[in-house]
Amino acid sequence: MKNISFKSVEGSVTAPQGFQAAGVFCDIKRLGTGKGSDKGQKRDLALIVSDAPAAVAGAFTTNQVCAAPVKWCAAQVKRGRARAVVVNSGNANACTGRQGLRDAEAMAEYTAAALSSSAHKIAAGDVLVASTGRIGVALPMANVKKGILQAAGLLQASPDNAHHAAEAIMTSDTRSKEIAVEFQLGDKIARLGGICKGAGMIQPGMSPTGQRPALRSLHATMLCFLTTDAALDPKTLQAALNESVAKSFNRITVDGDMSTNDTVLLLANGRAGNGALTSRSRQFAVFQSALDYATLQLAKKIVLDGEGVSRFVTVRLHGAKTPSDADAAARAVANSALVKTSWCGGDPNWGRILCALGYSSAALVEAKTDIGYSLPGSQDILYSLKWGRPTDIPFKALCRITAAPEFDLHIHLHQGNARAWIYAADLTEAYVDFNKGDVNDPSSLGG
Amino acid sequence: MKNISFKSVEGSVTAPQGFQAAGVFCDIKRLGTGKGSDKGQKRDLALIVSDAPAAVAGAFTTNQVCAAPVKWCAAQVKRGRARAVVVNSGNANACTGRQGLRDAEAMAEYTAAALSSSAHKIAAGDVLVASTGRIGVALPMANVKKGILQAAGLLQASPDNAHHAAEAIMTSDTRSKEIAVEFQLGDKIARLGGICKGAGMIQPGMSPTGQRPALRSLHATMLCFLTTDAALDPKTLQAALNESVAKSFNRITVDGDMSTNDTVLLLANGRAGNGALTSRSRQFAVFQSALDYATLQLAKKIVLDGEGVSRFVTVRLHGAKTPSDADAAARAVANSALVKTSWCGGDPNWGRILCALGYSSAALVEAKTDIGYSLPGSQDILYSLKWGRPTDIPFKALCRITAAPEFDLHIHLHQGNARAWIYAADLTEAYVDFNKGDVNDPSSLGG
Repeated sequence: MKNISFKSVEGSVTAPQGFQAAGVFCDIKRLGTGKGSDKGQKRDLALIVSDAPAAVAGAFTTNQVCAAPVKWCAAQVKRGRARAVVVNSGNANACTGRQGLRDAEAMAEYTAAALSSSAHKIAAGDVLVASTGRIGVALPMANVKKGILQAAGLLQASPDNAHHAAEAIMTSDTRSKEIAVEFQLGDKIARLGGICKGAGMIQPGMSPTGQRPALRSLHATMLCFLTTDAALDPKTLQAALNESVAKSFNRITVDGDMSTNDTVLLLANGRAGNGALTSRSRQFAVFQSALDYATLQLAKKIVLDGEGVSRFVTVRLHGAKTPSDADAAARAVANSALVKTSWCGGDPNWGRILCALGYSSAALVEAKTDIGYSLPGSQDILYSLKWGRPTDIPFKALCRITAAPEFDLHIHLHQGNARAWIYAADLTEAYVDFNKGDVNDPSSLGG
Repeated sequence: MKNISFKSVEGSVTAPQGFQAAGVFCDIKRLGTGKGSDKGQKRDLALIVSDAPAAVAGAFTTNQVCAAPVKWCAAQVKRGRARAVVVNSGNANACTGRQGLRDAEAMAEYTAAALSSSAHKIAAGDVLVASTGRIGVALPMANVKKGILQAAGLLQASPDNAHHAAEAIMTSDTRSKEIAVEFQLGDKIARLGGICKGAGMIQPGMSPTGQRPALRSLHATMLCFLTTDAALDPKTLQAALNESVAKSFNRITVDGDMSTNDTVLLLANGRAGNGALTSRSRQFAVFQSALDYATLQLAKKIVLDGEGVSRFVTVRLHGAKTPSDADAAARAVANSALVKTSWCGGDPNWGRILCALGYSSAALVEAKTDIGYSLPGSQDILYSLKWGRPTDIPFKALCRITAAPEFDLHIHLHQGNARAWIYAADLTEAYVDFNKGDVNDPSSLGG
């Protein structure tokens, strides 16, 4: 493996040993066709199951209004062990009161029952639950139960089945999002795979417990399910996930709205046969870098497939006085309606960027601020503003960068050493058109 | 006058005694036609002059990146006295460094010189300056000087001239915004008039000094110039303006972006002949209510004429724990991209509203939250959510309210007694289209 600590492999959540998956259509939106997914309906229920008890870690929305499945997961993840994840799209089971909590628990119970045999009992508490879709509508539990039974019957370790699961969690996503990597732990080969969904209501600010951290991001429904056959204890696994989420999902924004349902779950079943990783070992570093890579790639896929998104911008903020200043300044720019519409037009409008920085809570001085642009991966930064003054870089030269589908925005405040970066998107007519909904079709309205 | 403490009258800034105005075209954008406004060009320079020294009060953007004219005004307003206001559109004189400060001062000097006679000297410090338009480009001072001389030559107290001034300060506004009211102070008749502009970059958060207040709003170029012939000392005048701005301009948002140039100026020349108003007098209360009315009407005109705005929504937040919680909760809703796009579609999407409340910094409990809708002025509130649970009000009934061009959104958190309200707008395709600009036409890009 030399310097390359991991490599990409085919598949996603079933790439690691000992994981099976399935994705089925059970008509969660109650379109009433009653036809299965093989009849062309979009799958809407996913099941991911570990053959053996797995260590589990999670990160959840810090929105005070959080959905019933998030409450269920936050409680179960604390126990550190799980066997399965059941996920539905089409209904967020959010703002559904006590019925919602009962329904989330029932999903876990149905799944546990479907997976249990007389020889092998699985408890409801070993099943994690996630939902995404319309807010404020009760889940059609008869359909959900049918879907769980069907999915349990179809479980396989194949890439196709993992793909079906990835499709089943999609809402307004235009494509499924999957990844898998392989890495060496001592003399063992281990793998990590994941699926996720995003599209709208995207600015996650997740913490392990759903409690607001000191440095919190403000505002998706994004769901991500990761599996690995590496062996880690739950505490070490949670630390690794915290680190990765902070650098990936908590650094993306599509529209600045933080969802009620954001959830990331990571199951580690130890089937690779390595000795449990300890947090300062070289093997742990390999695992962390693989997890970092997988989560970052999945997070970027969410932004690139955001509702109406036509441009991907990495906002790189340097020289802030404090880390929270750096975060606030980068997010003010990444969430400004005027900045985002200028990106839509391919316009290097540094005036709007400077304006957004100025109203952020970050300390700055206009006469010390630099603003520049580069193509991704290029060291060649063209500065439109240096020390608060426009440079003589021609407007057309800046436009050649900002007209690209992907570019980096470099901001230096020269106030200190703190840095932050945000993966952001433009704001387009297509976003507005998609989200304004159709009042004549209540099913078009929602989360 | 009985219970009516004021009445509307014709005109705007020249309605009070002793004020003259003019609005001319001097090609600030350097379109290079060199043709005057009577040739069909949009006026771009306004002058408002008091015949007598006037008390002055002001409110300015709290954006850390603030334009040169804002710095000039903040310094002059502290002196409490002024004679004239000169305003240009087409160029914000923001992010223009030291040259910008020199240019703002030069605008004051040119104006002072043009208004001075051998018998009657006016100092540059008696002239206030405001600018709006593109950011980061130096003012064409030769054109500005010509415009000031021309405007000084055309000064009149007529409603037509006040209208020309109102036109000259417009940028992306589709119509001029003017108001004038008349009220009785003892046995004297006094008047107050105003003009303003808005359209984009609208979420003012102004303070008298431009310093951030404890409870600051986050994020327009909005400019407002008010005149009155009532007599007030500068301190009392500033207190009255603070009160009015807090209830009007600081309660509006179009896109959540706070401009570098927001400015409100109020000149009181005492020509009505009343005795100077003291802050606890009944006459002061009459003045305050007239000022409150004028600023609120002008603020609402800014939202209604916001870029691409198709719907005006008053967000009424009740029952917050603290005033800053109330403000934060109302603004989170008013600035949520998902809530604003749902308004565009006329969709009573309370799920998105609850989601935005949840990620605000305001303390709340989902199970205690109410969300309702009413037509403006109606006591008939239809609640879609009561104590966190959907009501049985039919979706179609809610849609009849949210399909109206103007409606009120009522949110009750049941956490305490603090309240806040925000005048907000929807987010439409037209906003995106307007603001994405045209990179082939740099003059289309800007503030």
